[in-house]
Amino acid sequence: MSILYALDLAGTFVFAISGILTAIDKKFDLVGAAVIGFVTAVGGGTLRDVLLGQTPVGWMNDLTYIGLVGIALPICYLGRGYISKLRRSMFIFDTVGIGLFTIMGLEKTLNLGLSPVIAVMMGIVSAVFGGVTRDVLCAEVPLIFRKEIYASACLIGGVIYLMAEQLNAFRDLNIGIAIAVVILIRYLAVRFGWHIGVKPLN
Amino acid sequence: MSILYALDLAGTFVFAISGILTAIDKKFDLVGAAVIGFVTAVGGGTLRDVLLGQTPVGWMNDLTYIGLVGIALPICYLGRGYISKLRRSMFIFDTVGIGLFTIMGLEKTLNLGLSPVIAVMMGIVSAVFGGVTRDVLCAEVPLIFRKEIYASACLIGGVIYLMAEQLNAFRDLNIGIAIAVVILIRYLAVRFGWHIGVKPLN
Amino acid sequence: MSILYALDLAGTFVFAISGILTAIDKKFDLVGAAVIGFVTAVGGGTLRDVLLGQTPVGWMNDLTYIGLVGIALPICYLGRGYISKLRRSMFIFDTVGIGLFTIMGLEKTLNLGLSPVIAVMMGIVSAVFGGVTRDVLCAEVPLIFRKEIYASACLIGGVIYLMAEQLNAFRDLNIGIAIAVVILIRYLAVRFGWHIGVKPLN
Repeated sequence: MSILYALDLAGTFVFAISGILTAIDKKFDLVGAAVIGFVTAVGGGTLRDVLLGQTPVGWMNDLTYIGLVGIALPICYLGRGYISKLRRSMFIFDTVGIGLFTIMGLEKTLNLGLSPVIAVMMGIVSAVFGGVTRDVLCAEVPLIFRKEIYASACLIGGVIYLMAEQLNAFRDLNIGIAIAVVILIRYLAVRFGWHIGVKPLN
Repeated sequence: MSILYALDLAGTFVFAISGILTAIDKKFDLVGAAVIGFVTAVGGGTLRDVLLGQTPVGWMNDLTYIGLVGIALPICYLGRGYISKLRRSMFIFDTVGIGLFTIMGLEKTLNLGLSPVIAVMMGIVSAVFGGVTRDVLCAEVPLIFRKEIYASACLIGGVIYLMAEQLNAFRDLNIGIAIAVVILIRYLAVRFGWHIGVKPLN
Repeated sequence: MSILYALDLAGTFVFAISGILTAIDKKFDLVGAAVIGFVTAVGGGTLRDVLLGQTPVGWMNDLTYIGLVGIALPICYLGRGYISKLRRSMFIFDTVGIGLFTIMGLEKTLNLGLSPVIAVMMGIVSAVFGGVTRDVLCAEVPLIFRKEIYASACLIGGVIYLMAEQLNAFRDLNIGIAIAVVILIRYLAVRFGWHIGVKPLN
């Protein structure tokens, strides 16, 4: 099993948990929770594959992805008694997920021979679009447009990864370091309320 | 004309009517009603085709689909005086539509050589995504996440169809029986307020 | 540089400005404004390319599109002090954008050998879908479903363009005349409150 594939499975699993917990929190029914969990987990990679023309999209050729959502579903329901304590976990799962998917999407796009700029964008799309779809389906303004640094963490992690690869900086540790950077920036941003904005004039 | 093609046209027509009636009910203008009617009618099949890589998507190569929406439009406007009585019809048209599209999408996906699990999922996508898009465009939480059994009816109908095909159970009646199962489950679910949920703890 | 390419760049730039101004107006942060600007600018063409199977989608093979959004971003922020006066500009940029993109999308679809009906539809999709996505991401009912003539202006402009091409009417001026028609209809519709609707019975 390649590292990229392992990352993809791990990201899918943590995003499925993040989506299902959100749906339970919103009192959707079981089917709604399964749909939101699946969409959160594979939405970003699906849009990336569709835009790149990689169809049938990835999860159609490997039932493991659907299986992971199927495993996440009972885990979340059995653990829902702890849900008020799980708010922190939802955040951690989501943060780990964006780290994993950013590097995954970036690598897949580079492998198709597209430019590094597009690769970083597709990394961000892979990381954030599942959550955007989750929020749109819940009729909310997507999280990434609200205050905290989110897509920016993916952007910085993606750029660091590209530079490290170019310089052959940390050898086999590049992937791990870039993912850690995304997670760290996102964590610090939420912890300390970081916010990139231009002050509105008024 | 093959049975699959006939089902597709019938599903398109009933979904177009369902979408246009919804738009009239929401007091959208004529163009808005045409767009919502078209999106509701072809949205599910379009997403299925895009995910499967069947592009240009189906309705682009056969103007019959657009023509059906064009026919549905004046029918709905001429009949809008009866619209308060049509709420029941909207529901019936929608229910027949999901039955037809579930089997359609499932068959199309199997024909591409993908797994039965994916085929059932693409059946559900074909059936429900038109309505999901309609609801998102109207800035509402999609119907399938609200109480009644909806995607689940498609799931059960799809699985019955696959099993009947495998067992060669009812021969040429498989399609009809599976569609009838979807419609019946959905009808009974709404009639008796069925709901698959896990009781929230509190 | 072909005329079509120049039109596409011009449309991208004006839509990026329209999207970024909207995001600033809604007090999104810098990243949100960049995303909304990019989605508004390339959303219509992206959906068109995906539906037509032209993947990787257009802007992936030419970084000029991303560069234009990058140029539009500081321009909008530096000019945001004038934003109350820019409401009129937002409208003008948006109107010029739909004119340019309608003809662009139509021509691209005809070049793939699809029917003129589909070409006009893809012209409308190219013109309006960026704005639709912008509105969905902001959790609003899309502009095109609200009162004024919008998609209809694209429809009329597209049909005039097709007829003029068929009749070889104005020779090289066809594109310019059709774009001017879209802009003029849209401008007059907003100026005089035009509205295509069927009176609700009640």
